[in-house]
Amino acid sequence: MNLMLLFPEDFVGENLVQITGRRCRHMLEVQKVLEGDALRVGLENGAVGEGRIISLNCDAIRMSVALTEQPPVPLPLTVLLALPRPKMLKRSLQHLTALGIKKIILVNTYRVEKSFWQSPWLSASSIQEQLILGLEQCRDTIMPEVVLEKRFKPFVEDRLPELMNGKRALVAHPSGKNACPRGINEAAVLAIGPEGGFIPYEVDKLVEVGFEPIHLGPRILRVETAVTALVSKLYD
Amino acid sequence: MNLMLLFPEDFVGENLVQITGRRCRHMLEVQKVLEGDALRVGLENGAVGEGRIISLNCDAIRMSVALTEQPPVPLPLTVLLALPRPKMLKRSLQHLTALGIKKIILVNTYRVEKSFWQSPWLSASSIQEQLILGLEQCRDTIMPEVVLEKRFKPFVEDRLPELMNGKRALVAHPSGKNACPRGINEAAVLAIGPEGGFIPYEVDKLVEVGFEPIHLGPRILRVETAVTALVSKLYD
Repeated sequence: MNLMLLFPEDFVGENLVQITGRRCRHMLEVQKVLEGDALRVGLENGAVGEGRIISLNCDAIRMSVALTEQPPVPLPLTVLLALPRPKMLKRSLQHLTALGIKKIILVNTYRVEKSFWQSPWLSASSIQEQLILGLEQCRDTIMPEVVLEKRFKPFVEDRLPELMNGKRALVAHPSGKNACPRGINEAAVLAIGPEGGFIPYEVDKLVEVGFEPIHLGPRILRVETAVTALVSKLYD
Repeated sequence: MNLMLLFPEDFVGENLVQITGRRCRHMLEVQKVLEGDALRVGLENGAVGEGRIISLNCDAIRMSVALTEQPPVPLPLTVLLALPRPKMLKRSLQHLTALGIKKIILVNTYRVEKSFWQSPWLSASSIQEQLILGLEQCRDTIMPEVVLEKRFKPFVEDRLPELMNGKRALVAHPSGKNACPRGINEAAVLAIGPEGGFIPYEVDKLVEVGFEPIHLGPRILRVETAVTALVSKLYD
């Protein structure tokens, strides 16, 4: 936890918060904080700054906070991700969040196992939990938006064009003609397939609405690794 | 497994291999291969190509193989990594291997817990196992070299300068003055600290022998993510 995320309901006075539950336990057991210690904090969707511990017991920690800085600038990237298996989903959500991505669309594709859509990790509260872990990792406060799209074709035909409006659209696919472009630093939509990749029909549908197929070279990377590699090439 | 790695001892005839153990079980249980199926194979430190299943039972699979292509070009990068915690170590070794890195030096630093050096995952056979998984992921055959350096100062003073000879040397550190350079595409040594980072003394020692401190922006990334991000920026 490189930043502790605060929520409006944590405030018990002006610039005074009371922390309980997971974050309190983490501070006591992992960070081993003491009275007077300072740590980095940030308000959900708001400013970041320093918190100083005023009092603590095993159930609650009180801190005075000074939120004076802006969070890191978000990446202007929407990621369209084929729904990964549950264990990967948790990691991927944390991962995309830590990279600074603010819009994540989890989409069904042919090679996504149907059972993945039944996963309890897709509940709003579980998703929120992973997003918080990602924000805490990268010292950000701006909560990403996560959208579930269970039907590929209607999504691509009816809703995706509007999301792409004015943006460069790229689909990562080993058969892509061109290598991933570098330093585009503009708003974009990036589609990433499941383990085993998109099927040709799906790539064709994406190309039809304006996606450019791009590749990452001869090595096949895990979805998570591929996302980081693509984002790092696309943005400075 | 996107490529099955073969070893000289698998060969039972010219262009004929017999696979047992983990790989045999994986083929039967996960890949669910049948007689006549073709799959991608590669010889350790050698060529890649196609294997075709001639016969199979629950203990052994026989394949005829045609190894006709070269493996992907290695990255000309030596990675100096502060020894991560055991669970992370496994993932990091797979990860670095999948990215195409062929020399990995695991080094002790102030913020590496001493107990990590006792981990059974540091045995030669455990390391080898992770490297194989990484090669199988990225369809490569060239086994990376992994070196353990348990004492930071003598390593940096006595052995590191020779490893750096003629190469650009970079140390990733949040306080680095410059951002990670892009597309250097030349031989380099990259030093990456532990969770919590290098201490200033360590950065100073590395700078003394010629390392440039570089940063990845305001977001703090996990070691694994940082490695992928750095490699993706440094090499096309």
